[in-house]
Amino acid sequence: MKADIEIARDCRMKPIAEVARVLDIPEDDLELYGKYKAKLSDTLWNKLAHAPLGKLVLVTAINPTPAGEGKTTVTVGLGQALSRLGKRATVALREPSLGPCFGIKGGASGGGYAQVVPMEELNLHFTGDFHAITSANNLLAALLDNHIHQGNALGIDSKQIVIKRCLDMNDRVLRNIVVGLGGKADGVVREDRFVISVASEIMAILCLAGDLADLKRMLGNMIVAWRYDGSPVTTADLGATGALAVLLKDALKPNLVQTLENSPAIVHGGPFANIAHGCNSVRATRLALKLADVVVTEAGFGADLGAEKFFDIKCRKSGLKPDAVVLVATVRALKYNGGAAKSELAVENLAALERGIVNLGKHIENLQKFGVPVVVTLNAFVTDTPAEQALISDYCRARGCEVVLTEVWEKGGEGGMALARSVLNTLENRPSDFRVLYPDAMPLEDKIATIAREIYGADGVTFGPAAQKALKKISDVGMASFPVCIAKTQYSLSDDPKKLGRPEGFTVHIRDAYVAAGAGFVVALAGDIMTMPGLPKTPAALGIDIDDNGLISGLF
Amino acid sequence: MKADIEIARDCRMKPIAEVARVLDIPEDDLELYGKYKAKLSDTLWNKLAHAPLGKLVLVTAINPTPAGEGKTTVTVGLGQALSRLGKRATVALREPSLGPCFGIKGGASGGGYAQVVPMEELNLHFTGDFHAITSANNLLAALLDNHIHQGNALGIDSKQIVIKRCLDMNDRVLRNIVVGLGGKADGVVREDRFVISVASEIMAILCLAGDLADLKRMLGNMIVAWRYDGSPVTTADLGATGALAVLLKDALKPNLVQTLENSPAIVHGGPFANIAHGCNSVRATRLALKLADVVVTEAGFGADLGAEKFFDIKCRKSGLKPDAVVLVATVRALKYNGGAAKSELAVENLAALERGIVNLGKHIENLQKFGVPVVVTLNAFVTDTPAEQALISDYCRARGCEVVLTEVWEKGGEGGMALARSVLNTLENRPSDFRVLYPDAMPLEDKIATIAREIYGADGVTFGPAAQKALKKISDVGMASFPVCIAKTQYSLSDDPKKLGRPEGFTVHIRDAYVAAGAGFVVALAGDIMTMPGLPKTPAALGIDIDDNGLISGLF
Repeated sequence: MKADIEIARDCRMKPIAEVARVLDIPEDDLELYGKYKAKLSDTLWNKLAHAPLGKLVLVTAINPTPAGEGKTTVTVGLGQALSRLGKRATVALREPSLGPCFGIKGGASGGGYAQVVPMEELNLHFTGDFHAITSANNLLAALLDNHIHQGNALGIDSKQIVIKRCLDMNDRVLRNIVVGLGGKADGVVREDRFVISVASEIMAILCLAGDLADLKRMLGNMIVAWRYDGSPVTTADLGATGALAVLLKDALKPNLVQTLENSPAIVHGGPFANIAHGCNSVRATRLALKLADVVVTEAGFGADLGAEKFFDIKCRKSGLKPDAVVLVATVRALKYNGGAAKSELAVENLAALERGIVNLGKHIENLQKFGVPVVVTLNAFVTDTPAEQALISDYCRARGCEVVLTEVWEKGGEGGMALARSVLNTLENRPSDFRVLYPDAMPLEDKIATIAREIYGADGVTFGPAAQKALKKISDVGMASFPVCIAKTQYSLSDDPKKLGRPEGFTVHIRDAYVAAGAGFVVALAGDIMTMPGLPKTPAALGIDIDDNGLISGLF
Repeated sequence: MKADIEIARDCRMKPIAEVARVLDIPEDDLELYGKYKAKLSDTLWNKLAHAPLGKLVLVTAINPTPAGEGKTTVTVGLGQALSRLGKRATVALREPSLGPCFGIKGGASGGGYAQVVPMEELNLHFTGDFHAITSANNLLAALLDNHIHQGNALGIDSKQIVIKRCLDMNDRVLRNIVVGLGGKADGVVREDRFVISVASEIMAILCLAGDLADLKRMLGNMIVAWRYDGSPVTTADLGATGALAVLLKDALKPNLVQTLENSPAIVHGGPFANIAHGCNSVRATRLALKLADVVVTEAGFGADLGAEKFFDIKCRKSGLKPDAVVLVATVRALKYNGGAAKSELAVENLAALERGIVNLGKHIENLQKFGVPVVVTLNAFVTDTPAEQALISDYCRARGCEVVLTEVWEKGGEGGMALARSVLNTLENRPSDFRVLYPDAMPLEDKIATIAREIYGADGVTFGPAAQKALKKISDVGMASFPVCIAKTQYSLSDDPKKLGRPEGFTVHIRDAYVAAGAGFVVALAGDIMTMPGLPKTPAALGIDIDDNGLISGLF
């Protein structure tokens, strides 16, 4: 089989204005970025102010394993299949981050015959949204340090600065730095660190803002530091809101590209799924729902992180209501969850599968708690055996879930027809009764405990002293009504990455917490969180090249 | 009079494809970025491989003063005037940097009725070129630190790392930092600093590269660090050339926008005019010369820095030959050079003018040494008196130069008709006999001394111990044939910013030197050089805003 980039390059892309016509987007409402990318204008947004919304389908997955689940691939393939069936459909995805692309992960635009194109553009600078976020974030940080340097009229405690500079890069030496060394003109010395741009609060804000007014309000509310007297200092206090919004005005507009089969793909935003909510932007999802009858979107990591935050943060804050969930699993990943070694996943192993399938079971149970109908899909590998597939089908049927096989990686939309039909059938016949997991009014500690018990399956939660103090401080400044965003390992339902399957008899330890006052959620830290990844021994960058005619190789 | 941004907003811009038609650029060769910006495709570049070149006019100025000279304004106004005269003409400018835009300087797209539009876009992210440079530079730095962290197979001396991270931001606390603190997984501790993106070598490379092959060669040649044994480590040694080139592939394509009068403006690149050569890109200039009969470009700061480097670095390396130079002066700036206080520049002061006009005189002499015909233009202010203007005319005529009044700030192209006619007359009747100031084969120390004596008017040069050592090292690794790029204050012909007019009886002190092995020049440092500006007491950012309908204010 050909490499992803070769398949993508062989695709006969249509001019983006033609793709837009499928969704009845007038050419005049496209802001072109080359021939195959466009931003959807604010005019279109305004025109559709009162348009009815289509159906919203979330694609999520079991806990990720080294075996790979193909969540994005299934999302794209499902979009392709729905379009093949003549549906007015679109996918609504996140934008990939440059950092991982040059590190270990490679690109993030699907795979095989279920990809979004132009793949190179998407995985490189795309339409500059992340660069705009980086600029806005770093302007804010520079204005803050400048404020202190110029006399610190706001009384900022330089030991309590919240805003961190960022780069869209994997760069471990920036994790712990000292800035402001040198002479008197070189600012105030303090410890600091950079985060990767997708980990910045501004990224989360861009993804939760409904419109420009909303964006400005949220930017203004960001707590950038604390005063010596314990009161917060915001972006608005610094006078920086307007300049930041100016830098973000185009980044707020959703991007339109296409799948390998020329169906529309709206790609916008890309916050971390641990310290942020890990979903594409509210603005893009809402616009997609006004343009299409069916919108397929995804959330980061497994359903315990991505789907829970999709429901409890994104849907709660935006008022969006999901109509169905597709839960992606693979035979390989379930066997891995059941203890099979990575090297032995190609061999039939019903015992391991039976031990590991409880992970799938728990996610089904979890998703059902939100009142949304669930379709399980098995992303097929050639090594899967009929007996293994049958075992999974029986297991899911016993839990009220249909299981559908997808072969979109190998066959594109054609390989996703069964899933598409099942999803359409679900949308037509199984009404969604979406509800969030906890009410706004619940105390923060109880919200955390509810998620840990109900979703992770924990016996309970313990709070370290820093977490206790932080949660009290957050409540004291009047932000206890925010939803919580638990930063936890993606590899396990528990907070221990080694506990696969469906762990039981564990408690979740919350060591610290902080508030993203602009984005409007409280982050509770369970375990160590990487906000600035590093590069591996042999970074993907070393294999990437471009020939003298502009042909790119090594991007995957 | 209206603010620049108001004038710009009132402009009836034409769709960029219409602007392109003036230069016979087929719509298919435009890569649109919205309706009013486009990149000029590589296909166009290839089609024009053997096209003849038009005439090249450089706009430069006397030493900058707080009074303002309006070099970019005159450049744009001259372009507008040439188009009014029915000439197939374009301006070829540098892209503004975001950092100063939010700091003290504001935007950089001309002023009054001689501006390039869309002004907001140009002064914000534009087509993302600078972001691409920032990404490429920071990927290189991350790969280097990662190489050391992963075992340092190349034997890099972490005390001799040349490549610095960059941001397109004024951020003084990043001037002197320590990176790599924390634990074992967080890299190697060392002192470091950030530079503003326009100060990066990659910016200089982008502006000197002829094509993609050239870009890759130059990137590969960059010395990123030195080994313990004193030998250089390059980008190619790190294996990073391909990935960097991939990140820069679109940034290498020149951008097309328009002036307020809908004439074409090619805007591309923007290196510092002190530690780099301060000119727009070779690729854009060459493409412009193939598309237009007359191309008007500019170089940074005064003629002692910008024009000298334009000739001795950009033209030498690219083979471009300028046909005429326009030297911009103002009555106000010349009086300031003659000792008049900033607050008294509105009053007639022939004595101060007479004392200060020697600055103009020296620049005329200098430019004549390069064999290019010179036209002096007086950028008019309402406060200029006839007697003052007459004094300057007489002075210049005695030196073989015509003086032409321009009123482009107030009147747009109409105010530049006299200058346009004079330039056309010069191009027709005064042949250029362009020559560089010194041969490649001259030793580096002698090149520096030649520039100091011939251009700055110094008695001689002294070299500090660091400079002596560095120049020897550069010669030892075989790079003595490079041209030199002297980093010096822009405010004086000498290396002392306080010495206005035409200083005499001084020596220039070179304290250090380094080689930009990829860009292909040697930087000699005369005095302190700011590679990371700071924000002022009241940054421009604090006055910038956007309303809920997307209308921007405060950008100037």
